[in-house]
Amino acid sequence: MSKKLTTRSEDYSKWYNELVVKADLAENSGVRGCMVIKPYGFAIWEKMQAELDRMFKETGHENAYFPLFIPKSYFSKEASHVEGFAKECAVVTHYRLKNAEDGSGVIVDEDAKLEEELIVRPTSETIIWDTYRKWVESYRDLPLLINQWANVVRWEMRTRLFLRTAEFLWQEGHTAHATKDEAVAEAEQMQRVYADFAENFMAMPVIKGTKTESERFAGALETYTIEALMQDGKALQAGTSHFLGQNFAKAFDVKFTSREGKQEYVWATSWGVSTRLMGALVMTHSDDNGLVLPPKLAPIQVVIVPIYRNEEQLDAISVKAKEIMADLKAKGISVKFDNRDTYKPGWKFAEYELKGVPLRIGIGPRDLENGNVELARRDTLTKELVKQEGLIDVIENLLVEIQERLFNRADDYRNEHLTEVNSFNEFKEVLETKGGFVSAHWDGTKETEDKIKELTKATIRCIPIDEKLEEGNCVFSGEPSTKRVLFAKAY
Amino acid sequence: MSKKLTTRSEDYSKWYNELVVKADLAENSGVRGCMVIKPYGFAIWEKMQAELDRMFKETGHENAYFPLFIPKSYFSKEASHVEGFAKECAVVTHYRLKNAEDGSGVIVDEDAKLEEELIVRPTSETIIWDTYRKWVESYRDLPLLINQWANVVRWEMRTRLFLRTAEFLWQEGHTAHATKDEAVAEAEQMQRVYADFAENFMAMPVIKGTKTESERFAGALETYTIEALMQDGKALQAGTSHFLGQNFAKAFDVKFTSREGKQEYVWATSWGVSTRLMGALVMTHSDDNGLVLPPKLAPIQVVIVPIYRNEEQLDAISVKAKEIMADLKAKGISVKFDNRDTYKPGWKFAEYELKGVPLRIGIGPRDLENGNVELARRDTLTKELVKQEGLIDVIENLLVEIQERLFNRADDYRNEHLTEVNSFNEFKEVLETKGGFVSAHWDGTKETEDKIKELTKATIRCIPIDEKLEEGNCVFSGEPSTKRVLFAKAY
Repeated sequence: MSKKLTTRSEDYSKWYNELVVKADLAENSGVRGCMVIKPYGFAIWEKMQAELDRMFKETGHENAYFPLFIPKSYFSKEASHVEGFAKECAVVTHYRLKNAEDGSGVIVDEDAKLEEELIVRPTSETIIWDTYRKWVESYRDLPLLINQWANVVRWEMRTRLFLRTAEFLWQEGHTAHATKDEAVAEAEQMQRVYADFAENFMAMPVIKGTKTESERFAGALETYTIEALMQDGKALQAGTSHFLGQNFAKAFDVKFTSREGKQEYVWATSWGVSTRLMGALVMTHSDDNGLVLPPKLAPIQVVIVPIYRNEEQLDAISVKAKEIMADLKAKGISVKFDNRDTYKPGWKFAEYELKGVPLRIGIGPRDLENGNVELARRDTLTKELVKQEGLIDVIENLLVEIQERLFNRADDYRNEHLTEVNSFNEFKEVLETKGGFVSAHWDGTKETEDKIKELTKATIRCIPIDEKLEEGNCVFSGEPSTKRVLFAKAY
Repeated sequence: MSKKLTTRSEDYSKWYNELVVKADLAENSGVRGCMVIKPYGFAIWEKMQAELDRMFKETGHENAYFPLFIPKSYFSKEASHVEGFAKECAVVTHYRLKNAEDGSGVIVDEDAKLEEELIVRPTSETIIWDTYRKWVESYRDLPLLINQWANVVRWEMRTRLFLRTAEFLWQEGHTAHATKDEAVAEAEQMQRVYADFAENFMAMPVIKGTKTESERFAGALETYTIEALMQDGKALQAGTSHFLGQNFAKAFDVKFTSREGKQEYVWATSWGVSTRLMGALVMTHSDDNGLVLPPKLAPIQVVIVPIYRNEEQLDAISVKAKEIMADLKAKGISVKFDNRDTYKPGWKFAEYELKGVPLRIGIGPRDLENGNVELARRDTLTKELVKQEGLIDVIENLLVEIQERLFNRADDYRNEHLTEVNSFNEFKEVLETKGGFVSAHWDGTKETEDKIKELTKATIRCIPIDEKLEEGNCVFSGEPSTKRVLFAKAY
């Protein structure tokens, strides 16, 4: 397979699809809508998981595991939740196969029909709150601060690797609190944790805000979101945190005895990010040559490629390479020495460029003589000769610099593509020409929101938390408004 | 709920079930056969995962993720595999629910019937080998050394927490090799990795062996197993590694071009351990007072409980406790300071005894005066006054000592319950009175194996790898035999 990618300007969507496959991140499987996450892609996801898991634990959360299956009736217990989630999902109806009598293979055994169908979890609020009922008796049992890493299934008709797949991996936090204030504070805290992760690890700037009622999670009283901007001017919802009020506690009868001896319903939050972040990572930094990875999430931060004509040269280079590897590892920098004799250096250079390895060290016989290495940066595609003496410090500093530069570049792009508009004509023009976030006054009604979506395909991504109050008029209806909201076309 | 457990001598099985629930490891869910793994249980599983994952990576493996669902037809491709696995499983037949017309809730939408049913993976050989076909072209693409951490579902009629559940968590390694020797070496290596983990982390001695043909994994040419012995004299298969020959490569047409330019089928292995290990851990070490955890897998290695009458005393104790905590953490020892004022010290002592925390430090006002702490060991249930000076070293050494002692105690028990027998009467008597492993000559036929199982419920757990050749006669048929095998009743 050629490593040449369709360029972003030719066809952004095609570029993305090709890159994800060619860089060995993921591919489609024989099962409709379900992806295979390949080792290189999974290694990035593992780095994301490790950081997020650490952040969750530092904020007092514990992991647990709840069943994959949810009895159908559970979904009917929370009225708005069933509308949002119990529709496009995988339904288990039988628990046995048998050999076909005609010898043609295996068929479903009709005698093994379940009394009640089981749904493969699209999200776990219902099964978890059914469990929490047994865990909560008194205020002493609260708060419950629990997260699970799991696979979930939502039957999607049109799927794209990482961005929208029938099965995906995610984490879902589900917390239970004695007071409303504590639950709201938790939901807000997790939004901040997500924003911190996105900005400081993914090098992806995000805008923190709340969702409008029609974009809220099914069953939530408030949905907190972080919204990122992709290179094609479309927004991507990167993580959400929900204040669920007492809806699930009431639906599943989860009460506690307060310090004052009263029976009260428990307050809830839930929050999640998924393998969708992999798509966001790709679309925030990568270029026409392939992946560009922020050093903090790169499975291989530095690759060493030997350039040699014979065994003797390779042996001499290997000695130096192993020395550099040991020094880098001692600094906690991940490094790979690619001494495979089955591929040529040029092939390897293209491979690691495609895979977004932040720094590449080339060492040839002349470098050995001169005490140099060739050091190539993936983000700028520049290379220079660097002295072997002091190389480790140079690399350590460069990794920090690259991480910062990627963030700043994405932040500049995002800022350039956040446009204030004051009329609907301007609104449409910006959307069609420049794209990005459009900051506009909105009258707060669902009618206007729906109408704008219908006319422009743009949705309200969020009501930004940091936005100042400002008198204005809705760009669509002209009705008075006190705050701008952010519209965009979105993934 | 009372913390008092049924004793092991009263009813071992009941003791186990109660302990798993009361120690907050797991509980049954509202979904038949599916368990909820509670935070404390999951924390132990996470420690197991972390060590195993490290060992897999150190032996060159990478993680990836493959789909939850497998098209039904995939199972029919490998003849012996379908017999073993495609029967008792969860079958997805529909992908949508809809509102019932009578308003009674949601029902399956019959218009959304899948053309081909999807099976929730009971194991992933078929979907993975269907994928490997696309990944392997030349010898340069081999070996593939891949593992996945996943949930799997096998519809079990009689379930028990951790030991046999419809859904369970596991890891499954799936490797592809250019030669038979390399694949066999891989399968053997992973058996050694599992044994290393069981003995050095779980403190659980195991016997390495191979399975008889009738006990082999469906589709394997050889199954390597590690077998442990539980306190009730029953064996437990703790991990298996399979040499799959070219069966799956042929079924899924996975060929490679060799160095010599020939087209050859790829050689395969697969290997796995599951949350069943949690059950093994509990049944290897715990006692009538609750869990006993080997320090290397204990989520909390040391707990500090303050003993106080008033705030002032608690404050003084807290200063010392935090000092001890900081010192322990600096040594990489996990420690919890339980300063909750909602529970009394006695309640806490019972709680941590039940949960198997290896060491408990009690500090009261008099201890502060005298420069002591009370240090209690969970494994021996002994306690002693220890000087605060030098405490950290004492604890560090004790954790090592406890880890060793647990292994040695389990090893002694296992050795005492491994009995050589030379007649079928002796065989039956040992099984009925003493239990444990019975080492006996066997004529190598399935008929004898089946007959012994029918008569005694004992199965051949393994043909031990370290067993010496020895002339003898089958205990059942009297036919000549060259090696003893291990029989036992098993979980």
